[in-house]
Amino acid sequence: MEVIDDPDVLASLSHDEAEWAPYGKALGAVRPRTTAEVREVVRHCAERGIPIVPRGAGTGLSGGANAVDGAMILDLSRMDRIVAIDADNMTATVQPGVINDDLKKAVAEHGLWYPPDPASAPWSTIGGNVSTNAGGLCCLKYGVTRDYVLGLEAVVGGAAGAYGTAVRLGRRTTKGVSGYDLVGLFTGSEGTFGVLTEITVRLRPARREAPKTVVGAFGSVVAAGEAVAAITRAGLLPAALELLDRTCLRAVEEWKHLGLEADAAALLLAQLDTPGDEEATAVASVFRDAGALWAEQSTDEVEAEALFAARRLAYPALERLGPVLTEDVCVPRSRVPEMLAVIEETAARHGTTIATIAHAGDGNLHPLILAPAGDEAAKRAAQAAFEDMLTAAIAMGGTVTGEHGVGLLKRAGMRRELSPEVLAMQIAIKQTLDPLNLFNPGKVVG
Amino acid sequence: MEVIDDPDVLASLSHDEAEWAPYGKALGAVRPRTTAEVREVVRHCAERGIPIVPRGAGTGLSGGANAVDGAMILDLSRMDRIVAIDADNMTATVQPGVINDDLKKAVAEHGLWYPPDPASAPWSTIGGNVSTNAGGLCCLKYGVTRDYVLGLEAVVGGAAGAYGTAVRLGRRTTKGVSGYDLVGLFTGSEGTFGVLTEITVRLRPARREAPKTVVGAFGSVVAAGEAVAAITRAGLLPAALELLDRTCLRAVEEWKHLGLEADAAALLLAQLDTPGDEEATAVASVFRDAGALWAEQSTDEVEAEALFAARRLAYPALERLGPVLTEDVCVPRSRVPEMLAVIEETAARHGTTIATIAHAGDGNLHPLILAPAGDEAAKRAAQAAFEDMLTAAIAMGGTVTGEHGVGLLKRAGMRRELSPEVLAMQIAIKQTLDPLNLFNPGKVVG
Repeated sequence: MEVIDDPDVLASLSHDEAEWAPYGKALGAVRPRTTAEVREVVRHCAERGIPIVPRGAGTGLSGGANAVDGAMILDLSRMDRIVAIDADNMTATVQPGVINDDLKKAVAEHGLWYPPDPASAPWSTIGGNVSTNAGGLCCLKYGVTRDYVLGLEAVVGGAAGAYGTAVRLGRRTTKGVSGYDLVGLFTGSEGTFGVLTEITVRLRPARREAPKTVVGAFGSVVAAGEAVAAITRAGLLPAALELLDRTCLRAVEEWKHLGLEADAAALLLAQLDTPGDEEATAVASVFRDAGALWAEQSTDEVEAEALFAARRLAYPALERLGPVLTEDVCVPRSRVPEMLAVIEETAARHGTTIATIAHAGDGNLHPLILAPAGDEAAKRAAQAAFEDMLTAAIAMGGTVTGEHGVGLLKRAGMRRELSPEVLAMQIAIKQTLDPLNLFNPGKVVG
Repeated sequence: MEVIDDPDVLASLSHDEAEWAPYGKALGAVRPRTTAEVREVVRHCAERGIPIVPRGAGTGLSGGANAVDGAMILDLSRMDRIVAIDADNMTATVQPGVINDDLKKAVAEHGLWYPPDPASAPWSTIGGNVSTNAGGLCCLKYGVTRDYVLGLEAVVGGAAGAYGTAVRLGRRTTKGVSGYDLVGLFTGSEGTFGVLTEITVRLRPARREAPKTVVGAFGSVVAAGEAVAAITRAGLLPAALELLDRTCLRAVEEWKHLGLEADAAALLLAQLDTPGDEEATAVASVFRDAGALWAEQSTDEVEAEALFAARRLAYPALERLGPVLTEDVCVPRSRVPEMLAVIEETAARHGTTIATIAHAGDGNLHPLILAPAGDEAAKRAAQAAFEDMLTAAIAMGGTVTGEHGVGLLKRAGMRRELSPEVLAMQIAIKQTLDPLNLFNPGKVVG
């Protein structure tokens, strides 16, 4: 097992991509390759009271993989083996370090599709995706990571027995209700119940034709938001319905020169995969009726791909410009226009720049708060804007985190969203499954 | 609040439809109409150490709603109000006693669809559906109840505070990862963590055209099973793919005179709802290639409806003939032919009659073991066959319950399926959320 003690490498493994989330000084890091090695590390750490911080690729945006002082970092990126692809049963079993896009490519060779597609898919791991219950672009029609996880192997302690015990949760069948849903409980638990060492996911048949793309340009982000609400009201269910504002479009264009239309205040990108053109025509028509400057079905596959690439590149494109504090609120779809207006007001009130990308069809908005590096006043303004948007989302019946997870950045927000009684239930479950508080301490309810 | 002490009514409320599952003598039953009344009952029972057994319509098939001695039955069938249908956000909020089909009808008026469709949909309640994580016919493409539950109100005790505390779990948004997934944990927990008092479900846009039906007749159930496996291998994803054997078909035909073809050893019914005819043509072709006696797309909507009605009526049609012990194994789809062969062998070995209906596309099989009323030897043979089929399903990597729940009938089977460590985790969570063991004691892990 590879052991890391180089201080520079250790430092880079001690945090994810969450801006300004605190992280401590780790004791060391290991890169196990097998469940047996993970068990050994967990046993060793439990005997010595050493906290364990599991991590995948470290692309998280909430500080969920950040080290605490004296922690052992369990870097699972070397556990990157695709254990089995069972085409007859449309399942795949993987080690946690397999990269999302690598799984997609491997199953595509069998005519299958693993839908969950966080924007980090080229880099993020399935283990990290499961630990955060990652969303993505196509959740609107195809659901989130949780909807694809059938079974897990995890190294746990507490209620299951001695720390270092490996358990198999869930099943390989498409349905099953034998006992409480521990797979669902572990999914999104951010490594606070144990270390995932194997994951079985369900797959879908590959799509038979390339999806169609409809683009609409709008004179304001709020107008784009109104069009999103109108899509739902019209009973349309695109595979994806994404919003990019002008700041995002320009940042991508300046970096990648994709030839994007960057004049409109906001673009909506809809991806449609029902056979036939009826759905695409209907979406374009709703965009126009909702006041789009223009709306059309992209006839050029390269152009359509460039638009979705722009969506995926928005976050790194903005990061090039300086620290980016990423928000992740989710509101009922009908409140999307209102939330977009709140984002604009919040930016104005705090004198910050907020660029917005959004899984708009899901009501899941990612306002990206920009702050010049080293500007302490801008940092404080950004953090105040961040909390204000959480407050607004809660007031609209929304949640403080749609898909990025609680980690460190949303702990206070979560305490405002959940009642004390529900929080107490959460804490009690954590204590039951990890009484020594060894697994990723301080995250979620810690 | 209506209080029931009539011994006959009390007896009828003391069990569900599980054949031969034991039930005790309840202290009484109440029919609350509000969350406040449920809270009052739970408080009252907790103070006196009276076990609480919640129930909906009592259509369960595992004994999950069966009373224990001295229990207070909480009949939630009068909490049958549809609280809100939010068309803009494609959600509905209901009390637990709302009947599945009533919800379907109500949301259809808004152009929306609530997909989960257990065969009991005309009678069973949403509260019961959530408590068992009910499946149904269209899970193959559209998922199970869990995939539709966004938020719950529940009256709980234990970790949350005093017994009788009402908590809101989950959310109203389509996505959300704020804290551990307690909604998923409660879904399928069979009332062992508390009493559900309100449920928010996600909806889908109504289907734009009537689904198409393809019927295939086969010379043996195993041949039908091979065709099911071939459908998956061909990358086809019907909305439903159901199997009925000859015994089921004849029982329905003798009762309802629907004019069913009852000569084949087994029928497969596929429902297809992708626009266009391509999918239906492909399914019929796979059926033929797999050796169907005949296979065709039903062009007559009345006939197609009769076939699916036959599927739904199979269980009550067989029940008319005497006690029916319902099995609910789920195996990997590729093992369906093998499991069907095991069912035939099991029937022969024990000298019992086993009729099979199956959500075949999901690998979820319902062998129905028939035993003449009052025949003790037949009852013992049926029970032995029941356990043998569980053993076979576990050996194939399957589960002892695909969708009916553990209740009382699958407790021993579940203990064979799960490892002692996983069972210990389950028990620990039950103790954390219900330390007094008041909520539906003896069910699942109790």
